[in-house]
Amino acid sequence: MRFFSDNAAAVCPEILEAFAASNRLDTAYDGDALSRSLDARFSELFETEVRALWVPSGTAANCLALAALVPPHGGVVCHHEAHIQQDEGGAPEFFTHGAKLLLAHGDGAKLTPESIAARIDPIRDDVHQVQPHAISITNATEYGLAYTPDEVAAIGALARTRGLGFHMDGARFANAVVHMGCSPADVTWRAGVDALSFGFVKNGGMNAEALIFFRTDLADATLYRRKRAGMLFSKGRYMAAQLLAMLDKDVWLRNARAANAGAALLARAAGERLVYPVEANEVFLKASAEEAAHLRSLGFDFYDWAPGEVRLVISWDQDEAAIRPLADAIAAL
Amino acid sequence: MRFFSDNAAAVCPEILEAFAASNRLDTAYDGDALSRSLDARFSELFETEVRALWVPSGTAANCLALAALVPPHGGVVCHHEAHIQQDEGGAPEFFTHGAKLLLAHGDGAKLTPESIAARIDPIRDDVHQVQPHAISITNATEYGLAYTPDEVAAIGALARTRGLGFHMDGARFANAVVHMGCSPADVTWRAGVDALSFGFVKNGGMNAEALIFFRTDLADATLYRRKRAGMLFSKGRYMAAQLLAMLDKDVWLRNARAANAGAALLARAAGERLVYPVEANEVFLKASAEEAAHLRSLGFDFYDWAPGEVRLVISWDQDEAAIRPLADAIAAL
Amino acid sequence: MRFFSDNAAAVCPEILEAFAASNRLDTAYDGDALSRSLDARFSELFETEVRALWVPSGTAANCLALAALVPPHGGVVCHHEAHIQQDEGGAPEFFTHGAKLLLAHGDGAKLTPESIAARIDPIRDDVHQVQPHAISITNATEYGLAYTPDEVAAIGALARTRGLGFHMDGARFANAVVHMGCSPADVTWRAGVDALSFGFVKNGGMNAEALIFFRTDLADATLYRRKRAGMLFSKGRYMAAQLLAMLDKDVWLRNARAANAGAALLARAAGERLVYPVEANEVFLKASAEEAAHLRSLGFDFYDWAPGEVRLVISWDQDEAAIRPLADAIAAL
Amino acid sequence: MRFFSDNAAAVCPEILEAFAASNRLDTAYDGDALSRSLDARFSELFETEVRALWVPSGTAANCLALAALVPPHGGVVCHHEAHIQQDEGGAPEFFTHGAKLLLAHGDGAKLTPESIAARIDPIRDDVHQVQPHAISITNATEYGLAYTPDEVAAIGALARTRGLGFHMDGARFANAVVHMGCSPADVTWRAGVDALSFGFVKNGGMNAEALIFFRTDLADATLYRRKRAGMLFSKGRYMAAQLLAMLDKDVWLRNARAANAGAALLARAAGERLVYPVEANEVFLKASAEEAAHLRSLGFDFYDWAPGEVRLVISWDQDEAAIRPLADAIAAL
Repeated sequence: MRFFSDNAAAVCPEILEAFAASNRLDTAYDGDALSRSLDARFSELFETEVRALWVPSGTAANCLALAALVPPHGGVVCHHEAHIQQDEGGAPEFFTHGAKLLLAHGDGAKLTPESIAARIDPIRDDVHQVQPHAISITNATEYGLAYTPDEVAAIGALARTRGLGFHMDGARFANAVVHMGCSPADVTWRAGVDALSFGFVKNGGMNAEALIFFRTDLADATLYRRKRAGMLFSKGRYMAAQLLAMLDKDVWLRNARAANAGAALLARAAGERLVYPVEANEVFLKASAEEAAHLRSLGFDFYDWAPGEVRLVISWDQDEAAIRPLADAIAAL
Repeated sequence: MRFFSDNAAAVCPEILEAFAASNRLDTAYDGDALSRSLDARFSELFETEVRALWVPSGTAANCLALAALVPPHGGVVCHHEAHIQQDEGGAPEFFTHGAKLLLAHGDGAKLTPESIAARIDPIRDDVHQVQPHAISITNATEYGLAYTPDEVAAIGALARTRGLGFHMDGARFANAVVHMGCSPADVTWRAGVDALSFGFVKNGGMNAEALIFFRTDLADATLYRRKRAGMLFSKGRYMAAQLLAMLDKDVWLRNARAANAGAALLARAAGERLVYPVEANEVFLKASAEEAAHLRSLGFDFYDWAPGEVRLVISWDQDEAAIRPLADAIAAL
Repeated sequence: MRFFSDNAAAVCPEILEAFAASNRLDTAYDGDALSRSLDARFSELFETEVRALWVPSGTAANCLALAALVPPHGGVVCHHEAHIQQDEGGAPEFFTHGAKLLLAHGDGAKLTPESIAARIDPIRDDVHQVQPHAISITNATEYGLAYTPDEVAAIGALARTRGLGFHMDGARFANAVVHMGCSPADVTWRAGVDALSFGFVKNGGMNAEALIFFRTDLADATLYRRKRAGMLFSKGRYMAAQLLAMLDKDVWLRNARAANAGAALLARAAGERLVYPVEANEVFLKASAEEAAHLRSLGFDFYDWAPGEVRLVISWDQDEAAIRPLADAIAAL
Repeated sequence: MRFFSDNAAAVCPEILEAFAASNRLDTAYDGDALSRSLDARFSELFETEVRALWVPSGTAANCLALAALVPPHGGVVCHHEAHIQQDEGGAPEFFTHGAKLLLAHGDGAKLTPESIAARIDPIRDDVHQVQPHAISITNATEYGLAYTPDEVAAIGALARTRGLGFHMDGARFANAVVHMGCSPADVTWRAGVDALSFGFVKNGGMNAEALIFFRTDLADATLYRRKRAGMLFSKGRYMAAQLLAMLDKDVWLRNARAANAGAALLARAAGERLVYPVEANEVFLKASAEEAAHLRSLGFDFYDWAPGEVRLVISWDQDEAAIRPLADAIAAL
């Protein structure tokens, strides 16, 4: 059984059904009825007017958001373990034409106003140093921690004070929202977020994510950038269909609840072994090389993360029956 | 009935079936078995060793190919009506970091060694002028003309003589191959082509195209560029599945034959009205504004292309029953 | 005697004197008194508040201006023979991160509202086509023609109507102003120009040009771009000193008058051989290969420009004694 | 008396004399005799065949070198306090089209094979992480430390082993060479350096630096990049003249010896207050805010560097008479 990553899970059936239902000739690009309905549908979800674009990957969502917030000569504050810094192959630099990532620190890949200020306060206000233009946080973080609305709002306040844009990488946004039990609005625009990469793929989607602009003035130029990035697919309705299928009947929340529940089950089994509290669908576990090998010998696959530390990620479609054996094996270590 | 573009047609059923068949947890990105089989499968098709990457759009395929062939300070010779110049929103300049398109001319958007030489011979060999590094042709062209293998080979010879890379935009490669009745190899690498954007989407695909490198040394760096462009999707198997489903049992040829046959039907009805010979699935027709309006009043939709000229594009799923009424209406004009 | 180009002439003595006068320790970069005086000095010259930056080449001035006016996904309308298109090695694409040059036509490399509209009117207002964001004209043009203030104003009116920025490449601005006998203001901001590359190097300078922003809001971000381009030199006072030395006592006008007078002398000798009216310091002459060879055999050096056509450029320091022999030789052809 | 930076000092008289001597019409760009002599002159200095280009700033030299060594999707290992990271306004990202700086650590801004390996060893060899393509060190470092030839060679060996390019930012190369008493060759190509930014401006130059390629195959494409960056000045002979004037009669060594001697004088006065050994022309001094204020009250100007720490930089033209009063004041603190 694989616990490598939720990004390798199956696609949830509602999406394949939506493909079948959309499978007729329609207007190309984003001129079809499904694509054109996204603004309204996401505005309803977020209880405010938003602009919503389908994009084909989380990297695309993140980088188009950053390109909207930061000029080529500017900088983006992010955690030094953020996905945009560690795992996107330089895509932020590509889409922004060379903006610089300004690396801040914090436990569990979580930023605070203090850690952000510690990074940007020493920057001289002159043309010799790259000036910050935006902050990017990941929610849930790369270590599966969810920001409370208040924590986001504190960063949002800093962003506003310093005149910085504010982006949230929500590759696991659903898992964070489910954990917090808050409304999507509370942890985004009400807390000062300008743009959200709203992840669906890790949560049961195929290859469509949503890029949400709460600052709606940023969307129009982004339409040009999306096209210029080769990402305005001609049969866009199959992208919109994925997003709509997952919003419908709250499939996105259902899937995230399932994954979070699986992780909670492992967390209870892990007890003192936990490196971080489990607030989403990722479990970081202290385990010796021998213990990890033992688990693998039982048929469980996962990544080593650091010396003496492994990562387990639960997917939307791994139910208790699938996870219980691993929980038992961990408890028995 | 819509004849706007083949890029808006439905997805062929083999693809949806392939999704269902692939819908289980697998290795992420391009590490799955389907993605890893592409090199071999396309090598077989092309009768030589190739590297084959899935990419999500024709623009992506074109621009990643150009980025592999041309440095940022270089130039690409293409037709002034080429898709990369007219309809990709500056994507070639984005992916190549600002390489210049050097525009050549020719009837029906077709290039020849002579028209290419006419563009590049006047370029002084100094650092003040952007030097050509590659040639890009479209086959079938933007006006639905197919290059013969000999025509391609003549350009290939020029490319080799001048030390230029050679890219083929094959958004409608299937239609061209069907028209020529040649092997895919004859009209590509045997004729000197280094990289091919092998289109599937217009031919019944959803959002996967193949980028084929006959110069296999160009592929490795392109893997980095694809990732950096936000296009290494985590569930890559659904991309590979699309391509494989269309290669299987020659679905790609079946679909292209159907579309070409439909266009041929219209061509016979159009007679003297044809602006260009019909060699693929596009029909350019002389029609006055009144005639165009009349056709539309009968329920046929299509684009005006130029004053007194309209474009009709046939899709893989428009059979004779769907097309016959339009053919009759054209004949009756 | 060389008539290749004014860009190879000696530096006028006032500049070397200014170096000697500035040659002491001062504040680095553009913090010295000379650099800080440029805004005021050029504001006085242009009779309005401007921002003035020293930059080390005309290409730098042009491209920083374009980067201020056009986003990476936008386009710049220019003449197909404009220096930015033909002779800057792709620098506009580099500085703008890949904006596209949209090529318009016109005799003598001169644009009109009509020729500009002919280029941009067919552009569809959608994300598939690169949209124009600015117009760039060269004054005097690459063929030595000067725009009247009214001609510039007509283009300025079009720019305003279409929401386009307006840049003037004034590599030979001095020669154009001298020919028109107008104020620098009349042919720039009063006619709608937003940014001017004000050339000094061809007019007796060494390596300093001025980039003038009439839209002063564009200057601050340009300071960052100039630094990022490696062009904020640490001893900036020697750049400012060049510009100030040439403004002082109207040296810039004196030099341009001398060069224009030399060209006029040749023009009178050339008579019917002139390809264009001589309005600056360039003379384009019909001359057979034999005639050109004859002139060269007499010791005159110059470029062939086109079949049967040669170019002669007069520099600020070529006086009547230097030019008279060439005039006589031309008259005697 | 100012001790802010050597980058604000006067220009040495040999340069102004060279301008006067070069001040006649010549071939434009880098076609003049002086520019064409640079390869030979620097090859002689370095005792091997090199390619030598004039460029107008240290940032330009650094960034053109990096662009030659690193693709846009690659990374450059440098110290986290390196000038390219801290003080070039994002120029490395601009010239390389977004390559990433990979920050390593070490006392006194000095790198070692171990500190470099510590940064790059954890990078997974896959497309998700930016791969290192080059190492860049600064000699003398930002804290005035000089690398021994052996120290450079150890890094050069690592670079070779890992297949990385090797760049040296020699903004104060002369000061380092003088300190080491080694040949320029020993501390560069013999130690594995591929490209050197050879600084002249801080050492008495005006606005010309030399970019030296020991890997001569990298030079030709750099000529295109220099042009594309707006840095191929039309009157290039005044650039070459600066470099040649400073090589002639070893003016570059004379100037560096003078600056180093001044720094050594301060170092002796400073004793235990020194933060780093003084190996070039920079002195970092422990001094309380009160002590710094006291020195300033005596007429000495300098930068605060860190809490309780100030920086003093000696220029080529500050002789013992100029420095002695500061040395005495420091000794008397």
